[in-house]
Amino acid sequence: MIILGIDPGTATTGFGVIKHAKKLECLDYGTIQTSPSSSMPERLTILSDKLNGLIKKYAPGVMAVENIYFFKNLKTALPVSQAKGVILLAAGKKGIPIKEFTPLQVKMAVAGYGRAEKKQVQKMIQCLLNLRELPEPDDAADALAVAVCCARGLDKGL
Amino acid sequence: MIILGIDPGTATTGFGVIKHAKKLECLDYGTIQTSPSSSMPERLTILSDKLNGLIKKYAPGVMAVENIYFFKNLKTALPVSQAKGVILLAAGKKGIPIKEFTPLQVKMAVAGYGRAEKKQVQKMIQCLLNLRELPEPDDAADALAVAVCCARGLDKGL
Repeated sequence: MIILGIDPGTATTGFGVIKHAKKLECLDYGTIQTSPSSSMPERLTILSDKLNGLIKKYAPGVMAVENIYFFKNLKTALPVSQAKGVILLAAGKKGIPIKEFTPLQVKMAVAGYGRAEKKQVQKMIQCLLNLRELPEPDDAADALAVAVCCARGLDKGL
Repeated sequence: MIILGIDPGTATTGFGVIKHAKKLECLDYGTIQTSPSSSMPERLTILSDKLNGLIKKYAPGVMAVENIYFFKNLKTALPVSQAKGVILLAAGKKGIPIKEFTPLQVKMAVAGYGRAEKKQVQKMIQCLLNLRELPEPDDAADALAVAVCCARGLDKGL
């Protein structure tokens, strides 16, 4: 099954596409960028279009998104949630199931340790997916991590 | 110009459609409901479809949404923001400008008093739009109020 992992944001949304078979295989990863000089409806439209493109290209069987309950402030929480609404809509329109995971679950699944640092998580992702280089930028690595977490959950029948 | 006012929510999104000419005229108002038993992607898909239907039917020249900075808790803020993301996307895809107003601006514009109570606002909306009955439910009345606030702003060249 193909898993599309997403790390939502308005300026930068990370994505990671992995194939979950006997082994995990990385098919693609990167970021969807939008410019702060565009209006919010324009930015969400770009995000929606690019996301629909990825869904069309890879036909994921499931989408995995980080579920963030804690925000330092509402100024971050509200735009990220708006982007997340657009991501959930893209899944809903195609009937693709969404799995949500907390940052703790992602770190536990990838690094076996809930307080693992960003760099450790990136190195584990590189190992697990047999990547030549460390996955970058952070948002793309985070998206791969949530996809791997989702794969681990599927292995356990969750 | 046709103004589509929206009061965003996941369970209930209020909408109000008014025609802004020499006089204000109410064309339609009501709510888009989704069931708590549906998944969030399903609920956002229903919201998106119904909203796109309203946009197609009334071809609004502008959409007006309440901009809420203050939430009692994140549990409310996050799903409302997800719904708002879907609303902004619907506008963005059609290139319809979005105007955002704070609850204070809406109350000032409709009732001339920032701390006006819900009932007062509803009565003013009934008068201004020459409605036979008090607009109900609250979400639909709030959507009409933000549309009227937008019309007032257009009058002032805002």
